[in-house]
Amino acid sequence: MIVAVYTTIGAEEMARIVSAFDVGALVSAKGIAEGVSNSNWLIETEGTGNGPLRFILTMYESRVDAADLPFFLGLLDHLAAKGCPVPRTIHDRDNRAFGLHEGKALALIEFLPGVSVSDPTPQQAKAVGAALAKVHLAAESYQASRANGMDLEAWKGLFGDCGREGLASIHPALGQTIADELVYLEANWPADLPRGVIHADLFPDNVLLRGDEVSGLIDFYFACTDIIAYDVAVTHAAWCFSTDGQRFDPALSRALLAGYQAVRPLSSEELAALPILARGAAMRFIATRAYDWLHTPGDALVTRKDPMAFARRLAFYAEPGNAGLFADGL
Amino acid sequence: MIVAVYTTIGAEEMARIVSAFDVGALVSAKGIAEGVSNSNWLIETEGTGNGPLRFILTMYESRVDAADLPFFLGLLDHLAAKGCPVPRTIHDRDNRAFGLHEGKALALIEFLPGVSVSDPTPQQAKAVGAALAKVHLAAESYQASRANGMDLEAWKGLFGDCGREGLASIHPALGQTIADELVYLEANWPADLPRGVIHADLFPDNVLLRGDEVSGLIDFYFACTDIIAYDVAVTHAAWCFSTDGQRFDPALSRALLAGYQAVRPLSSEELAALPILARGAAMRFIATRAYDWLHTPGDALVTRKDPMAFARRLAFYAEPGNAGLFADGL
Repeated sequence: MIVAVYTTIGAEEMARIVSAFDVGALVSAKGIAEGVSNSNWLIETEGTGNGPLRFILTMYESRVDAADLPFFLGLLDHLAAKGCPVPRTIHDRDNRAFGLHEGKALALIEFLPGVSVSDPTPQQAKAVGAALAKVHLAAESYQASRANGMDLEAWKGLFGDCGREGLASIHPALGQTIADELVYLEANWPADLPRGVIHADLFPDNVLLRGDEVSGLIDFYFACTDIIAYDVAVTHAAWCFSTDGQRFDPALSRALLAGYQAVRPLSSEELAALPILARGAAMRFIATRAYDWLHTPGDALVTRKDPMAFARRLAFYAEPGNAGLFADGL
Repeated sequence: MIVAVYTTIGAEEMARIVSAFDVGALVSAKGIAEGVSNSNWLIETEGTGNGPLRFILTMYESRVDAADLPFFLGLLDHLAAKGCPVPRTIHDRDNRAFGLHEGKALALIEFLPGVSVSDPTPQQAKAVGAALAKVHLAAESYQASRANGMDLEAWKGLFGDCGREGLASIHPALGQTIADELVYLEANWPADLPRGVIHADLFPDNVLLRGDEVSGLIDFYFACTDIIAYDVAVTHAAWCFSTDGQRFDPALSRALLAGYQAVRPLSSEELAALPILARGAAMRFIATRAYDWLHTPGDALVTRKDPMAFARRLAFYAEPGNAGLFADGL
């Protein structure tokens, strides 16, 4: 079960919101269950002469800082202009990329077709790798930057909020694993790798596919400036395992990396760093999942995602025998 | 805040579900927040040669009995064929109106444009009255029938489940009001009025409008065979008051009734019965709302609808000075 919590907007209000944009009159609006930190509507309008148009109207809830919206929305426009499959932001009649509605920021974003797969094929993983590389290249000329709010310091903060007892309630060994891993990562985290704008959350949920083609990369609300190869590691952790982290799929791994390298070849330094970057990626999702796990009532309708699914990925990446997997087949 | 709880269906599964219908390949699927007892997705497919098509895929959760689906879905097809603005059911390649997915019934239903208003205008109320009358006329030739599961006996059962203390916790006087009203309604409920298929839940949420035109009547999952004028009373209670029931809008009332009568004139017996039918309609929604109020945890994310909003409507309809309102302006 999944839950979408969204702000109610009446039809009259919705029509008024949409009238700020040069897209024609509102025809339909459906609240959609997409994104846990935003409210989203799939909107249809009459268009402006070439048939009806569709958009996603996003209202930003507490998790997204409106001060970051120029970075996020400007990035979408920049990447779309460079030919990346990301949705454009529709600017209003005053050329604003986002507006305010009852104190909440909202943006009208291009609707892209496609579906999010739950069991990707190697062909799809290859296409995702290539699309990610294309984003990294296209973002080189994006001028804005944003610090990664989910860096090692942030993980430490989240684990601290969980507390020893909280982590032990998830798994008896989890607290010690995390403490040891943080020591290792702090001592060894790479300092000199190429940096750039990264998506930082490219899970299958955030990729729209039509068959084996990527039709959309969405949900850039963790995008930031960080080590580019770390994004490859995050995407690897997100795509190459069974959901519960029990099973690693070498064919998906090879395909994802091959797809990426065909567009943006990784340097030998980046390749050598992938194992530790992947351990960091696993830690990043253990951190937010453990925090959410302990701060979401067990009887809430919201699905809690199991932190152990990423503890298993961490164990896999930390296994010395698996260190060669990122070079495998390249 | 509103919450949509829905079953998760992966893209691969969704593509397989859609492939049972002759509508072309799946292009897009978004879980939508519509209907509290069903899970719904807005689906786009490639179509079969005349451009893309859109549908609502509905998966029936516990509140809808699959044995009633032939009645509900057959009714949609019957009304659509008669020119009523209701969505058609898409039959699968084996001509089935609904299928099963993991033990749950699901149906593919035509997508209709339009938005649900929260502050209707008299023009809109008039159009809704006319559309309701058209449904009543068109349904005369529908052969199937279904008992009203939300009749007076059902209200009594729901109030019994609430208990005296439960009702008192909502409002100190509510239990006595209900007890008195049940006595009155049982003694005076009309027996000989024309019966037929009624929608029985035609709130603004269940009407799609484009401007002042009704583009869709949806959510027929309370439809049943009962007194036709009772449906007029339900629709009156749903459309002619402020949401909290504090304020009656005579202009909306006149418009709704005029719109209805222009298509299907009410007999003098039906007109004379509208006051008591409206009291019954108010009781029907007090009953379900009181039950849900007492059986939904206060801290749940689901919005509980205030039973008192319909207790106020009941008081309005029961006021002797208001007995003439249904004749007013006719």
